[in-house]
Amino acid sequence: MRTLFGPDHEAFRDSVREFLDRRVRPYVGEFAADKALPRTFWTEAGKQGLLGLEVPAEYGGELEGEPDYRFNAVLTEELAKVTMALASCWGIHADIVAPYLVHLTTEEQRERWLPGVCSGDLLTAIGMTEPGGGSDLAALRTTAVRDGDSFVLNGSKTFITNGYSADLVVVAASTSPGKRARGITLFGVRTDTPGFSRGRKLDKVGQAESDTAELFLEDVVVSEADVIGEIDNGFPLMMQQLPQERLGAAVGNLAHARQILDETIAYARERTAFGQPIGSFQHNQFLLAELVTKADVTQAFVDQCILAHAHGRLSPIEAAKAKWWTAQVQNDILDHCVQLHGGYGFMNEYRVARAWRDARVTKIWAGSNEIMKMLIGRDLGL
Amino acid sequence: MRTLFGPDHEAFRDSVREFLDRRVRPYVGEFAADKALPRTFWTEAGKQGLLGLEVPAEYGGELEGEPDYRFNAVLTEELAKVTMALASCWGIHADIVAPYLVHLTTEEQRERWLPGVCSGDLLTAIGMTEPGGGSDLAALRTTAVRDGDSFVLNGSKTFITNGYSADLVVVAASTSPGKRARGITLFGVRTDTPGFSRGRKLDKVGQAESDTAELFLEDVVVSEADVIGEIDNGFPLMMQQLPQERLGAAVGNLAHARQILDETIAYARERTAFGQPIGSFQHNQFLLAELVTKADVTQAFVDQCILAHAHGRLSPIEAAKAKWWTAQVQNDILDHCVQLHGGYGFMNEYRVARAWRDARVTKIWAGSNEIMKMLIGRDLGL
Amino acid sequence: MRTLFGPDHEAFRDSVREFLDRRVRPYVGEFAADKALPRTFWTEAGKQGLLGLEVPAEYGGELEGEPDYRFNAVLTEELAKVTMALASCWGIHADIVAPYLVHLTTEEQRERWLPGVCSGDLLTAIGMTEPGGGSDLAALRTTAVRDGDSFVLNGSKTFITNGYSADLVVVAASTSPGKRARGITLFGVRTDTPGFSRGRKLDKVGQAESDTAELFLEDVVVSEADVIGEIDNGFPLMMQQLPQERLGAAVGNLAHARQILDETIAYARERTAFGQPIGSFQHNQFLLAELVTKADVTQAFVDQCILAHAHGRLSPIEAAKAKWWTAQVQNDILDHCVQLHGGYGFMNEYRVARAWRDARVTKIWAGSNEIMKMLIGRDLGL
Amino acid sequence: MRTLFGPDHEAFRDSVREFLDRRVRPYVGEFAADKALPRTFWTEAGKQGLLGLEVPAEYGGELEGEPDYRFNAVLTEELAKVTMALASCWGIHADIVAPYLVHLTTEEQRERWLPGVCSGDLLTAIGMTEPGGGSDLAALRTTAVRDGDSFVLNGSKTFITNGYSADLVVVAASTSPGKRARGITLFGVRTDTPGFSRGRKLDKVGQAESDTAELFLEDVVVSEADVIGEIDNGFPLMMQQLPQERLGAAVGNLAHARQILDETIAYARERTAFGQPIGSFQHNQFLLAELVTKADVTQAFVDQCILAHAHGRLSPIEAAKAKWWTAQVQNDILDHCVQLHGGYGFMNEYRVARAWRDARVTKIWAGSNEIMKMLIGRDLGL
Repeated sequence: MRTLFGPDHEAFRDSVREFLDRRVRPYVGEFAADKALPRTFWTEAGKQGLLGLEVPAEYGGELEGEPDYRFNAVLTEELAKVTMALASCWGIHADIVAPYLVHLTTEEQRERWLPGVCSGDLLTAIGMTEPGGGSDLAALRTTAVRDGDSFVLNGSKTFITNGYSADLVVVAASTSPGKRARGITLFGVRTDTPGFSRGRKLDKVGQAESDTAELFLEDVVVSEADVIGEIDNGFPLMMQQLPQERLGAAVGNLAHARQILDETIAYARERTAFGQPIGSFQHNQFLLAELVTKADVTQAFVDQCILAHAHGRLSPIEAAKAKWWTAQVQNDILDHCVQLHGGYGFMNEYRVARAWRDARVTKIWAGSNEIMKMLIGRDLGL
Repeated sequence: MRTLFGPDHEAFRDSVREFLDRRVRPYVGEFAADKALPRTFWTEAGKQGLLGLEVPAEYGGELEGEPDYRFNAVLTEELAKVTMALASCWGIHADIVAPYLVHLTTEEQRERWLPGVCSGDLLTAIGMTEPGGGSDLAALRTTAVRDGDSFVLNGSKTFITNGYSADLVVVAASTSPGKRARGITLFGVRTDTPGFSRGRKLDKVGQAESDTAELFLEDVVVSEADVIGEIDNGFPLMMQQLPQERLGAAVGNLAHARQILDETIAYARERTAFGQPIGSFQHNQFLLAELVTKADVTQAFVDQCILAHAHGRLSPIEAAKAKWWTAQVQNDILDHCVQLHGGYGFMNEYRVARAWRDARVTKIWAGSNEIMKMLIGRDLGL
Repeated sequence: MRTLFGPDHEAFRDSVREFLDRRVRPYVGEFAADKALPRTFWTEAGKQGLLGLEVPAEYGGELEGEPDYRFNAVLTEELAKVTMALASCWGIHADIVAPYLVHLTTEEQRERWLPGVCSGDLLTAIGMTEPGGGSDLAALRTTAVRDGDSFVLNGSKTFITNGYSADLVVVAASTSPGKRARGITLFGVRTDTPGFSRGRKLDKVGQAESDTAELFLEDVVVSEADVIGEIDNGFPLMMQQLPQERLGAAVGNLAHARQILDETIAYARERTAFGQPIGSFQHNQFLLAELVTKADVTQAFVDQCILAHAHGRLSPIEAAKAKWWTAQVQNDILDHCVQLHGGYGFMNEYRVARAWRDARVTKIWAGSNEIMKMLIGRDLGL
Repeated sequence: MRTLFGPDHEAFRDSVREFLDRRVRPYVGEFAADKALPRTFWTEAGKQGLLGLEVPAEYGGELEGEPDYRFNAVLTEELAKVTMALASCWGIHADIVAPYLVHLTTEEQRERWLPGVCSGDLLTAIGMTEPGGGSDLAALRTTAVRDGDSFVLNGSKTFITNGYSADLVVVAASTSPGKRARGITLFGVRTDTPGFSRGRKLDKVGQAESDTAELFLEDVVVSEADVIGEIDNGFPLMMQQLPQERLGAAVGNLAHARQILDETIAYARERTAFGQPIGSFQHNQFLLAELVTKADVTQAFVDQCILAHAHGRLSPIEAAKAKWWTAQVQNDILDHCVQLHGGYGFMNEYRVARAWRDARVTKIWAGSNEIMKMLIGRDLGL
């Protein structure tokens, strides 16, 4: 019933699938064992034109004319169908940081950074969350103190996707601590800058293919040319990108769940117990009917959001609804899919088991579901 | 975020609202006390052009050119916002029976029946469900035995909306009992035919404004001219109308719940306890955020279905998803709305209390939610 | 698996059942039509010895020696199995007010009030909740101003069970408004006192057999001899009774749900659809297994609470858990029982339909489920 | 509120805790890294007297007089509080297989096997589940063909807890294939028997500390002396042990969840966000109140079952209720505990993350929750 995509989007989807089937899917096990995507993943994706969807051609990207978020959505879906971590790593680099670097930067910065972002030679991350800080940006403790033309950064960041292998991190730091959320500035910090270091790759419940790390900044000196946007203006800038960040999460959540659900339905048709396909037991039949309905209903809303965003009309609140709802739906669906696989659902070699683990974080990250509900509630005047 | 309606639909919505505010809303209490909509409701709705949306102008209806289901949806929504029973009574007469009489009939039948349907002078009902029979049409026990040019009908029907006041009932009867579902024929039976009688108005948990009745057919004689469609072909004919029947239920379910939810949010902003608006308690704030999200997500799916149906592309299975899901969502939302009203939520004078009662049947009727899940499950090949 | 009752309790249960079958069950329809229990119900219950379980024999009650709450529990269960309203009306009079009048009163008051309480000639109610006040006792607006040896009461109360027919109301009024919850005093107010009046019987969603009313106090003069307990000490006194109040609600909630569940299981074994008993459909089979489990698990907790209370060891917090959990379980169970009855579940003549309506208030009254959760949360140090 | 334990049980609990704190808790990380409990765990537990609670002293066990299941329950609880895998590995060996070997064996077998079971030198497992077979014992494909005084076993088993390190496996094999469930015989098979082999340790979603393996039997020859119980009588024998198996699962499920819940409440009191303890946010406060209530309610039922079983009165159906309900409750609680930990809940170094993973299998194994519901439903006559 999806009606939002045209022939161009579908052609793009086909090319993405072909690329993923050939260059990515066979190696996902290696990525997981290595707890990171290899650099070759990024450079090949760059060659395929998948890293600069929103970057103008003059900076090495794919964009000629107006951006059409539906292409981002198609790519997010196809990545998530392979594995959640692909969608999240790509999303940070190409769907969140790249737009920052296109929209909030100077010409000099764009020329400096964007070609590498598009080619995969300059892998990026975003350094926002801090240990103990969670979703509370106003409590940011990383500081950037001006010293002539420079800024000296001190602090630490955690749960940073792409953090272990990134070359450039967009760091949020407090330039005016007294002003709390209104005193935050964004900096582009190269990870080879003296004083910048990182902890080990974090051992996560799921998404082993992504590298997630703690970052430490100890008297890291950056110049004025590394300031992204205006001083003390980082918070509003980050807010501008929220619809796309949340929507990207939502698109991936649902595509991931839907893929595993489809595979589970196929399994339920084939696998027998007590002499009949397990999907033919009425309990399972009703359950799968419920899950498919839930997925389809949710898809309609996500599609509505994608279309609204493609037309520049998606509000952060609608995106917040899409984010928390899809995360909940995804986890609900996957828990039932595990159950339908019986003991195999508890074995890591089964994809459904890994998918269940991968999905758990989506209710927590990108603004926890609780934060989303708070924002929606406030928007209702409550 | 709704994008499916154009200016014509919105203008129609305004006129419907004006009509309902003026001619209906003030009298709903009387309808409930009388356990029926008065005939004047129907004739005024007829004058307003609300009974023949899908009936060609030549038979007294409003249709010139192609039908556009979006108008039906608008009307269903506005009726449901006043009270569920309005939507269901109107739906039976104008959204289910009227299309039967347009599409399945002979020219003579159309001329005989449709002008009255459109004017409100010939109120209709549909006689399908039987005592003890529930959703199992193959088990139909009402029989129609041919006697020369006539048919003699015997049996009984129950839970018939509009049943007490209808002038014409589309009765499903078995003409070939051995053929079960494939031996059912539809008859247009006037309720003043000798042998036709009805029980009292049923005392329902909710929807007091609608009359619901048992019907009894004892040697009721109808002629061949009263057969709707072909002999033994009733079941496939009924199936053709399923998408619209289920979608109409879905549209009403959601509009009803949404209306009460909006009123509850307003209440939660105003009503105070422990010195603050009850909506500002985080538990309530999150809860209302969840309910609004659920309503919005569901609306996107319903709108997708409306648009698909307006283009003749809605499958019975997609409509089944919309039916059961909206019924569940409606009941969930209303239960929380009652709770947010505290003790007042248990008092019939409060609209939320009546709405909660009204909604309970939507998980049961029009093919119970369980039947919908079975159909969806089968469609998945389970 | 219940192990808390001995032969005495079971003998008492038998006698209660016999009484209810003979003198009450046949007339419940009349009670509902009249929106009140008739006085003869009370006086016959008095003759049967059911109103003074905790009242010492010297004041007309049944108690010789130590009270044993298990008898109260047995009676509550058997009343709730007939209809929720019986349990709630009896509970207010004999399980909440009677202990107040035994434990918080002077010898003169006991002699004045208790014989009538036990015989059913002095029907009681408790006047705590106020319009707009909900569960927030500190916001009480009814005042009692001392005038020599008298007090002049002004204010109004709402949702008062037994309120329309009570002879004596235990009214909570503020004697020291500045002290909020610590300035509340309890008064025994006869309803024939000048200035005392009541509104009509409230039209409730369920529990039609109980009379519920608003009470108005306009310059109602009572004497010092009508003060129950000490001045300004009403709140702590009310707190003392909380375990029994909440437990009584819990015992009734569960017995009521269990009774309807048992009847529904019997129905599901007998009623057929698609050629087999509806209970044999796996969806229904699993559902009923879940509901029975939930009822049994809950019963174990309620029984543990009953036994603890019989030994004087039930804390208000444990009772709060029992209250909210049973109310939730009861409503969950009954909603499914309605669904299993199909269209009949929406017809008031079916007991399951009325039971579903009756139960809705249990999540709201006696301290709403939300209040219970707040108290439990605080007790966790949160 | 727990009342089932006396001073002896509590003294035993203290000694178990002391043992676990000293000899087990510090090494759990090593067990997980090694994907198995080391043999020293078993032999030390044997020295501590924890492996033969139900084994008479004459065979090296602890039992003098009648067994008291409450000691088993205490031990199960304390093991589960350390980590689920301890409870499950111990449970298979000492709570399931040991009773088999006590009750179903010959004197010669008891003398041969039980001393090693009690000392930890003869580690046991139970070989019931087969690849593709799930919970359907009647479909058993492992065969035992008589050959003179011997039996030749062929087949494979999977998901066998303790399977990789066991010395003795109780294997269920079909001796009369045509008789399905009534043709199953139990054999005590030493894992050093020629033809017996095992696959690698399975890579599970959780419970890394337990070794789980596939077992292969290829022309494994055992003698008549290795038959446990009578030929073709294995199924009824296995049925006899069901109450204890299911109850043991239930006791561990709940103790595990309760432990993590308690730790999470402590965390919610200490950890701050937006300037206040996260447990003080009303959403979290209510949530934790709900989870504590659910745990307490469930504990009452489990305790009732423990006491019934200690008196030999626990039916398999009541135990089935305890099994599925606790597994559901455990998983619900743990999912919320993860969420309350935010990003840390997704890090394996946090106990809550590992606990969440460990628990997932409890809805699947030991007769899946679906099987339990089917059995309960049948018991209701459905």
